[in-house]
Amino acid sequence: MGLVAVDWGTSGFRAWQLDGTGRTLARHAADRGILSVDGGAFEAVLRGQVGQWLDPRRCSGVLMSGMIGSRQGWQEAPYVPAPAGPAELSAGLHAFALTDGLPAWIVPGVSARAASGVRDVMRGEETQILGILPALGAGEHLLCLPGTHSKWVTVRDGRITGFATHMTGETFALFSKHSILARTMPGDTGDFDTSAFEKGVRRSGEPGGLLHHMFGVRAEVLVDGLAEAATRDYLSGLLVGHECRAAAAGRTVHLVGSAALTARYQHALAMLESPTTRHDPDAALIGLVHIARSRGLLTGRP
Amino acid sequence: MGLVAVDWGTSGFRAWQLDGTGRTLARHAADRGILSVDGGAFEAVLRGQVGQWLDPRRCSGVLMSGMIGSRQGWQEAPYVPAPAGPAELSAGLHAFALTDGLPAWIVPGVSARAASGVRDVMRGEETQILGILPALGAGEHLLCLPGTHSKWVTVRDGRITGFATHMTGETFALFSKHSILARTMPGDTGDFDTSAFEKGVRRSGEPGGLLHHMFGVRAEVLVDGLAEAATRDYLSGLLVGHECRAAAAGRTVHLVGSAALTARYQHALAMLESPTTRHDPDAALIGLVHIARSRGLLTGRP
Repeated sequence: MGLVAVDWGTSGFRAWQLDGTGRTLARHAADRGILSVDGGAFEAVLRGQVGQWLDPRRCSGVLMSGMIGSRQGWQEAPYVPAPAGPAELSAGLHAFALTDGLPAWIVPGVSARAASGVRDVMRGEETQILGILPALGAGEHLLCLPGTHSKWVTVRDGRITGFATHMTGETFALFSKHSILARTMPGDTGDFDTSAFEKGVRRSGEPGGLLHHMFGVRAEVLVDGLAEAATRDYLSGLLVGHECRAAAAGRTVHLVGSAALTARYQHALAMLESPTTRHDPDAALIGLVHIARSRGLLTGRP
Repeated sequence: MGLVAVDWGTSGFRAWQLDGTGRTLARHAADRGILSVDGGAFEAVLRGQVGQWLDPRRCSGVLMSGMIGSRQGWQEAPYVPAPAGPAELSAGLHAFALTDGLPAWIVPGVSARAASGVRDVMRGEETQILGILPALGAGEHLLCLPGTHSKWVTVRDGRITGFATHMTGETFALFSKHSILARTMPGDTGDFDTSAFEKGVRRSGEPGGLLHHMFGVRAEVLVDGLAEAATRDYLSGLLVGHECRAAAAGRTVHLVGSAALTARYQHALAMLESPTTRHDPDAALIGLVHIARSRGLLTGRP
């Protein structure tokens, strides 16, 4: 019997059909994050995307991670407090059943408390981190999982011991679409203007703070003739620069995420003299397979 | 002959009917900022709001300040570079005429260059500043004009010598309406939750940076049971706290703006041990009258 593994986030849906050994038979991805699902119709969307994989004669269930386990998701999987590693995450699986009785599980998120006492939470990244643990080894490591809500995570001896979320991606999206900066910012062409990005990273180190630096994106277009086409990557560099200065502080950073996004962070971190290593973007799949094995959800036969 | 004075900003329209001595005969305000004006119909909106004041037998023209002089406004009034005082602003008036020949003038904005070389711009605040110059006297003063784009301005011996814009109000609006924080944030009741605001101001002084601190507004609701009703003023305190820490640095601050907003800044600045003075919220009118006098636009007779 195989299994269906799903990384179901705020904006994206990625699924893998696994055989009984954990090998990938097929994969599927769509822009069907939980925000696109109306009226709680998560099972209908799951079946619409990968219904042909959910045959109970060949599939023992569906194992999911990500925002699908949040209060805005399908079922809320309570947070496991840090420090948390493979044992705590496997033990914390939230189990339920689809309408036809097929078993479903959601990997719990992780909560942490900073030295200041303020709480933080993650959902989905804990599973990606499980996927790269073998590449990290023992000792303490700093990881960055960039995105809408970037996570900066400390892993010690194979367990998540603490982390901090930065709203970098969401801030970029809001300001490039809805703020006054959007009026002089063209749409995304997919190009990467290295020089504009570097200008933003450098600017992030000057006095005045982020709220002030962001206005400079507009003022420099109005007065100093910054090309409107350059404002996108200038803003991106500004935000990534602020994030990396606050979170990396010159340490070695393990980057996990899409190639395009981790390349951007690698570029900024190099300017700030932080060495970086980029890891497998399919870390979520590896983490889900690890959990499935440890809970006996895979039969071991193809 | 009298004059019509208008402070026409991004979101608001305020007008005063003045007699020949500069005394206010009537005042009018509406939510008809330049963003609400479609297709460049500024004259139609002006006449719709205060058309009865624009009789050429009793009115010598209309004197305007604010974003109405921006690229997105009626006519672009070029920026005057700092240092700029009453003489430079009066000399820089942009003159044109309404369709019936009635004269119109727009006060120029001011541009400045920070020590880092980055430009900044203001429109409308320069006129408010003219209005409080008599209350400041000689020497160097730090002013804060809070709002969508807060201005922190250095005035020396009656002239604007430099300033920095912080996108505090716009960031608050975007995050409270469109971000993931909005999902656990109720609408504005008009109440001021002092304790939540103070919590935000204190948090702004901890390590991690603004992009991280903002996510805490969500995490503390999810995990630590922060009341959803408290998230609005917590976010407000966080943003105002970041702004004031970057801009005030313990110095005495002269606040110019609405009573509700300057009270909020006064509260935060007191926590950061910056003494404050609040000035006349009608500073724009006083500044416009000053410019009208210096350019001979008022006859001197009632």
